[in-house]
Amino acid sequence: MAFVEHIRRCNNYDRARVVPLLAGEQRIGWVRRDNAAALRRFPKVFAVEPERVVLMAEAGCDAVSAAVDDVVEALVADDLVPKWRNETFDVAVRWGEPPLFRLDRGAVPFFGVRAYGVHLNGFRRDRDRLHLWIGRRAPDKRIAPNKLDNMVAGGIGNGHGVLETLIKEGEEEAQLPAALARAAVPVGAVTYCMENRLGIRDDVLFVYDLEVPADFIPKNEDGEFTGFELMPADAVVERIRATDDFKFNVNLVILDFALRHGVLRPEDPEYLDVASGLHRPLD
Amino acid sequence: MAFVEHIRRCNNYDRARVVPLLAGEQRIGWVRRDNAAALRRFPKVFAVEPERVVLMAEAGCDAVSAAVDDVVEALVADDLVPKWRNETFDVAVRWGEPPLFRLDRGAVPFFGVRAYGVHLNGFRRDRDRLHLWIGRRAPDKRIAPNKLDNMVAGGIGNGHGVLETLIKEGEEEAQLPAALARAAVPVGAVTYCMENRLGIRDDVLFVYDLEVPADFIPKNEDGEFTGFELMPADAVVERIRATDDFKFNVNLVILDFALRHGVLRPEDPEYLDVASGLHRPLD
Repeated sequence: MAFVEHIRRCNNYDRARVVPLLAGEQRIGWVRRDNAAALRRFPKVFAVEPERVVLMAEAGCDAVSAAVDDVVEALVADDLVPKWRNETFDVAVRWGEPPLFRLDRGAVPFFGVRAYGVHLNGFRRDRDRLHLWIGRRAPDKRIAPNKLDNMVAGGIGNGHGVLETLIKEGEEEAQLPAALARAAVPVGAVTYCMENRLGIRDDVLFVYDLEVPADFIPKNEDGEFTGFELMPADAVVERIRATDDFKFNVNLVILDFALRHGVLRPEDPEYLDVASGLHRPLD
Repeated sequence: MAFVEHIRRCNNYDRARVVPLLAGEQRIGWVRRDNAAALRRFPKVFAVEPERVVLMAEAGCDAVSAAVDDVVEALVADDLVPKWRNETFDVAVRWGEPPLFRLDRGAVPFFGVRAYGVHLNGFRRDRDRLHLWIGRRAPDKRIAPNKLDNMVAGGIGNGHGVLETLIKEGEEEAQLPAALARAAVPVGAVTYCMENRLGIRDDVLFVYDLEVPADFIPKNEDGEFTGFELMPADAVVERIRATDDFKFNVNLVILDFALRHGVLRPEDPEYLDVASGLHRPLD
């Protein structure tokens, strides 16, 4: 492995393999061509043309959400979408704009709509050496079971804010008190566009840093982690370089942390690849 | 103005307006088509083809540098290049690789070779509010006269290292003691690709943060700055949003600082444009 290999995996999106999903004149997703073909039998909801898919339903957020959800149910029956049923994401033209519809989280890659998450680097300074709290994902997680993860991370469900999600996930995943979560510093966003088995992940991860006190020990409440370990940040970085132990996008979030805190330094042969590889311009 | 306007200006490069400059099979620059045409009369040094320019000189770094410099002298005579005569940059396929030749700094945009610089955010925390030391560029500067700037910034001349350049520029520009400069934290790189009057700036700026003590007051030695002012970081950010007072690329370096330190927050409508706009992937 190498740092760039992790970056490449998260940016393997190929424009030639997808067509835009449009709402009016505006692109809201990237649909892989095989997925577009599977939408042909729902002409009232999606118009499938050779080089684009157009959302036809236009009757307000609730009605469009219901129409799209009927399509999703059919796609689930065809085994093209693994429906989550407990979490929906807002689909909008741009972050912060009113949603056009809500979409089951499992169907997000099928339509290639942009998804938003929040990741928290929980860290400590022990004798000037940075340490990171690293979680181990449970073996029954749908995505990246058993992989190492940030102390807190989660997708931003419909209607929820960034900080609100951070506080909620912090409580559930790490027993992080809300007052401590509120002290986290927003430090930017990691962006990438990735094709996987299901479609396209066009992801934006809001990143926060939180220096936690020495007497705070994260504990998992919701069964999503099997445990946490405090690791020296430089050892984490070398483990990222050498292994595939961390969840695919967590590699990028931690590399961003390592860059911002001088754990990764200009002498590293991959320094500029990392510095220019974690923030794909949004299109 | 808006943050995105500063980002757009630094990323106005248009692939259709340039041809690659190749050394063997490897691209080392982007030459604007009008500049490529001006190279036709030096066939021993550059082969100008419709869709590329190929470096023909191949006799070792010193000999290639001399051959290219003869071309540069002729371009200066034609008023196509403003030669600096006191500073050359290394031209290599990749950062860290041995240079193919050295090029007068004034000719760098003509050939569109990647240039490297170092920028230092000198900051202080006064009652938990971040302040930045901001310099005012001298009226006789070639580039961006009278504009506001980082506390220390400079191009990385041939044969010099990143930290070495930071220390040298720190002493000359701000009377920053070397011991203090060495405490600066490398925090990544800002990258952009910009067309200007002369050609293409394909720039990589290594960024450092330095928290300076309250008794350190920067003073200019080399005449490049007319003075320094300590400004609240949030006021600097709003001034960047509203004005064109800062040097074009310094806007990006300070926005990167503002993101990393939580001065700019996710509530800002331009947050994601900034977070995804400061690190153009290197090609």
